[in-house]
Amino acid sequence: MSDLPSRVAIFEEGPREGFQTGPSVPTADKVRLIDALAGTGLAQIDCTSFVDRRWVPQMADAEAVAASVRARPGVRLVSLWLNAAGFLRALATPLDPAPMVLCSVSDALARANNGCSAAELVRKQGRLVALYREHGLRLEAAHVSAAFGCHVEGRIDAGKTLATLESLLQVCLEHGGLPEIVYFSDTVGAATPESVTELVVRARSRWPEQAFALHLHDTRGMGLANAYAGLRLGVTRFDASIGGMGGCPFAGNVGAAGNVCTEDLALMCEEMGVATGLDLGALAECARMAEAIVGRPLPGRLMKVGRLGRGAATTA
Amino acid sequence: MSDLPSRVAIFEEGPREGFQTGPSVPTADKVRLIDALAGTGLAQIDCTSFVDRRWVPQMADAEAVAASVRARPGVRLVSLWLNAAGFLRALATPLDPAPMVLCSVSDALARANNGCSAAELVRKQGRLVALYREHGLRLEAAHVSAAFGCHVEGRIDAGKTLATLESLLQVCLEHGGLPEIVYFSDTVGAATPESVTELVVRARSRWPEQAFALHLHDTRGMGLANAYAGLRLGVTRFDASIGGMGGCPFAGNVGAAGNVCTEDLALMCEEMGVATGLDLGALAECARMAEAIVGRPLPGRLMKVGRLGRGAATTA
Repeated sequence: MSDLPSRVAIFEEGPREGFQTGPSVPTADKVRLIDALAGTGLAQIDCTSFVDRRWVPQMADAEAVAASVRARPGVRLVSLWLNAAGFLRALATPLDPAPMVLCSVSDALARANNGCSAAELVRKQGRLVALYREHGLRLEAAHVSAAFGCHVEGRIDAGKTLATLESLLQVCLEHGGLPEIVYFSDTVGAATPESVTELVVRARSRWPEQAFALHLHDTRGMGLANAYAGLRLGVTRFDASIGGMGGCPFAGNVGAAGNVCTEDLALMCEEMGVATGLDLGALAECARMAEAIVGRPLPGRLMKVGRLGRGAATTA
Repeated sequence: MSDLPSRVAIFEEGPREGFQTGPSVPTADKVRLIDALAGTGLAQIDCTSFVDRRWVPQMADAEAVAASVRARPGVRLVSLWLNAAGFLRALATPLDPAPMVLCSVSDALARANNGCSAAELVRKQGRLVALYREHGLRLEAAHVSAAFGCHVEGRIDAGKTLATLESLLQVCLEHGGLPEIVYFSDTVGAATPESVTELVVRARSRWPEQAFALHLHDTRGMGLANAYAGLRLGVTRFDASIGGMGGCPFAGNVGAAGNVCTEDLALMCEEMGVATGLDLGALAECARMAEAIVGRPLPGRLMKVGRLGRGAATTA
């Protein structure tokens, strides 16, 4: 009776989102986690971000991480940047460049994260798209931050999100072409299953040829419910974070509370017959490793409760 | 575009499920929490259980709790029992008797919790129904434990759950009448949104006149996703537990890991336009009180991250 997709891709964001807040983590620990994650069946791992180290000292070792991680067939090791300078730094490393643009539906979030208004941030993406083109690279992803709301503006209406995306896609078109996929990012965890449904349905109606993905946070415990809403609509690509890393939802860190947990999302998918290609036991091991590295409990459940099994609960 | 119910009832299970595992909690703390919960808009609070104190010493003060909690108009204070002796104890207290029967789809769980086979447990319910009738009480609820699986038998097929319910309803009919509502209880947190959907759809198809409710646990982080699946089908009654009390999911306590969290479920409902009649701020206060009483972090999110608001995150 299920009309869920038969297969989804879960992309790992933990090493970037998980290590960009809180105390800095030794480079060797980051590399160790990334290498372990690369053995779990993940097709893409976001390893680091090439951002200004004065603002994000936790990512000051981006080049060192990029130089140390082990390439593995079938696993794409990527990174994030926010501007041309970051892109050029990334391009000089062995990591695979995944050309992206971003916008923020929240003006407050754009000013806090990108130092300019939301409208200016959209305009700035034109230079990035042109730069990708100069390097013979095709734009892959467009990220729509605060797609469902933010901690300053509260809930954001889908109409505003679509209007922001419209202006971003226009800039992309003018400078080189449309992205292969658009991510709706629930940056602070403001979405509900119904707001996910509304936004995806309306976006598809507006751009029927465009692929959409979800980048969800579990700030308010609705992460998997929101993912389920996406699955019901046939969304087949999700960002997630091992152990649910990415800020600490238990510290009132609303702005950066944890991503939806990779292994818990994978478990839900697999148990509903949606193939992920992921090794749940290996992911649970990685989650325990991540927990040991950050030195505090992470919200992921699978690593603690294991899978249901005959005879006893297994340890995943 | 929502086809969710306009209103749901969330019944509070925390004082019973939350305090029945782990170290015993002072009676005065239990009473204090129940009195606070009674001021949040909750229509029903499960205060304690009249079970054998040799097996569940944490509930040895059931009579004392029942005698101490403050009655309040519009708030029904109820309790649980597992057999005739427990019912008669409850009946002698000021708590409101809510006549119920129960069965377990899992034989292993029946033997562990009730000391008999699943089939024998069903047969035993006849005596309870007859006893309720002798006291002029109508059967209210039938609880189907391990409706989606258990930690020993793993996932349980909906067909087996429906067959168990069929035999329970037959016993009810023979001894006095059908229950007003049937709870599918995800006792160990084995459900997925799809298994919730399948069971509710098939149960309704089999018994179109019967009302169904959900008693969910959040063992694997799918609690709200499972609740959303229920909401989509128009389920309008849910059990939940303040702060997500009810065993500790972070201690590998698979058999009793926390119920779906009252205030987080209420938040999801309210934000999707489903009225709960609950005061979220007051619930968050109760969750903090519950956390202080048990002396360990509870999984509930709202009390930590607050609601999205203009200007800043509020503290709910």
